[in-house]
Amino acid sequence: MTNTFSFQLQSTHGAARTGVISTPRGDIRTPAFMPVGTAATVKAMMPESVRETGADILLGNTYHLMLRPTAERIDRLGGLHKFMNWDRPILTDSGGFQVMSLASLRKLTEDGVTFKSHIDGSKHVLSPETSMEIQRLLGSDIVMCFDECPALPADKTRIADSMRLSMRWAQRSRDAFGDRPGHALFGIQQGGLEEDLRAESAEALQNIGFEGYAVGGLAVGEGQEAMFGCLDYAPAQLPVDKPRYLMGVGKPDDIVGAVKRGIDMMDCVLPSRSGRTGQAFTRHGVVNIKNARHADDPRPLDENCRCPACRNYSRAYLHHVFRSQEMISGMLLTWHNLTYFQDIMQGMRDAIAAGTFAAWEADFHAGRAQGDIEPL
Amino acid sequence: MTNTFSFQLQSTHGAARTGVISTPRGDIRTPAFMPVGTAATVKAMMPESVRETGADILLGNTYHLMLRPTAERIDRLGGLHKFMNWDRPILTDSGGFQVMSLASLRKLTEDGVTFKSHIDGSKHVLSPETSMEIQRLLGSDIVMCFDECPALPADKTRIADSMRLSMRWAQRSRDAFGDRPGHALFGIQQGGLEEDLRAESAEALQNIGFEGYAVGGLAVGEGQEAMFGCLDYAPAQLPVDKPRYLMGVGKPDDIVGAVKRGIDMMDCVLPSRSGRTGQAFTRHGVVNIKNARHADDPRPLDENCRCPACRNYSRAYLHHVFRSQEMISGMLLTWHNLTYFQDIMQGMRDAIAAGTFAAWEADFHAGRAQGDIEPL
Repeated sequence: MTNTFSFQLQSTHGAARTGVISTPRGDIRTPAFMPVGTAATVKAMMPESVRETGADILLGNTYHLMLRPTAERIDRLGGLHKFMNWDRPILTDSGGFQVMSLASLRKLTEDGVTFKSHIDGSKHVLSPETSMEIQRLLGSDIVMCFDECPALPADKTRIADSMRLSMRWAQRSRDAFGDRPGHALFGIQQGGLEEDLRAESAEALQNIGFEGYAVGGLAVGEGQEAMFGCLDYAPAQLPVDKPRYLMGVGKPDDIVGAVKRGIDMMDCVLPSRSGRTGQAFTRHGVVNIKNARHADDPRPLDENCRCPACRNYSRAYLHHVFRSQEMISGMLLTWHNLTYFQDIMQGMRDAIAAGTFAAWEADFHAGRAQGDIEPL
Repeated sequence: MTNTFSFQLQSTHGAARTGVISTPRGDIRTPAFMPVGTAATVKAMMPESVRETGADILLGNTYHLMLRPTAERIDRLGGLHKFMNWDRPILTDSGGFQVMSLASLRKLTEDGVTFKSHIDGSKHVLSPETSMEIQRLLGSDIVMCFDECPALPADKTRIADSMRLSMRWAQRSRDAFGDRPGHALFGIQQGGLEEDLRAESAEALQNIGFEGYAVGGLAVGEGQEAMFGCLDYAPAQLPVDKPRYLMGVGKPDDIVGAVKRGIDMMDCVLPSRSGRTGQAFTRHGVVNIKNARHADDPRPLDENCRCPACRNYSRAYLHHVFRSQEMISGMLLTWHNLTYFQDIMQGMRDAIAAGTFAAWEADFHAGRAQGDIEPL
């Protein structure tokens, strides 16, 4: 264990990278997928099970936690790690993105955002300064700058204005973060799908200086091709010696394409949310367990998967408990999906280190193209 | 492991008994509490966690399973144990009780009951013969006779007629069960709160002969005093050398009072159902985790409890996840409640064996009288 925050790049293969982020709460092997623990729980999972899937770090949502149970309460109770029984690293977002998607009566000014809680209608303010304070109270290991993220498509002037506001907020976030050894503050690049704005944003962030850099403002509806188009240049605009985090991504092929383009960290609700709606991700694509074809199928979801859903249960059982709306359905499918996502990450880390990433990627796509096993 | 079903009584203390039921799928330490796995899952629990709480045997509901996924399907898939990943003993009820409480358009004749499924309205028949066949297809280790259970209060003629019908059905159940080494068929005593009818029922059952005997028709709204009044004589009417099972009981003090009166086995949905509604059972009574008094409380539910909810989480966390309607709330509180129920059983088994059951019982009641810890 170290008492500082650092990043060691270990191998590269084309633009793809593998390395280790060291923190006082443990190492994060990159490329890393961060399961989302919105309200101080990764839905349907015990934290020790999340760890078993191979996760080194979780993401917590500032917006949700500030409203309930509140950051002050979590602080009084000893911080988010203790509260939710996860002693490894936690990254918290700034709250900005979710204010825009969940809160009502939002008012955006140079200072920040005022809004009403979607839970009880109470009024709150998020600004670079309050976001830093809330993330400090939560005890977050990796803190994100407070930024604004316009929905795409938007005209270039709107995107530029928004990006420049976010850069002013990045400076205020850096100032408010202060000196916190062992904790990291990540800047967030904005600029939509405009290469020149992305470059301007990257430069502004590096002039401020951060422990890591996120590619923000993607995965907001622009589609995979547009996102990959942006990732063809955006990561390279960021420092090579710092972790690069793509926020809110994604589906398995999004993740692989992002890593291929130089991304080190990602997060997404997809594996847990899909698990609760009966969707399983496998090497051979998506399986909808609610389909009648599984009702009598004694085979596991994926015979090569190490998760409890695959080791101990048939598709017929998973189908039955989904149809019966039993909690174990969400528990098992979430466990499976998180395991699959972590196994992709481990596969990519190994392949990048071994110099076989291109072959790994071809194999990944071939498995998906094959499709699910034939019905019996 | 044995390949037969047997019961060894080891110690008694007054009417209370401790012993072991041996089955090919493992031993059942008595007095035993059986968690209920209605639809092939103990709600909110992984089966390995149920085992960790100390459960030696689960109960499965014939009514639910025959409708979905159907007994025939479970049979094709290798039986209920394999289907739900529980390789220890399973007791199945006969379906009779739940037909009466859940199904619509019931029609009761000497032959059996016709009814419509509460899930899809499809028509089904349950009779001693079909119930035995369904329980055989499920692979149940302990099969219950198909019986009829009148709601209380009812007049004595109705109770007597119903009991005698159940006794004729008990003979038909025995005949239909056939010769199945390693599997047990339990008869069910009826007779409401009438001592002479209970005696008549017990005699009728013993004339047929069963591997165990249930006290049926209680815990149907008659209240604890009336139930204990019946248990003051009913168990003693049954053979001393066979297990005695009190169906559908109960709250912790019901369980202790039943064991004191000579009951060896019980089942109830209470620990799991209450866990999902924010109620925790502790040595000091019931804790409603949704109460605001817990919102800032850093203490565990019960500092002496060995379950994950108590070892790893504060009341404040349990309160937060309940209020946030997170699945981990039901997962943790169910785990706690099942652990508490199993710890009561272990405490009674030890105390009966040590000849200290009276002291144990006094301690149990004193702990409950003490009430929950004071708010901070």
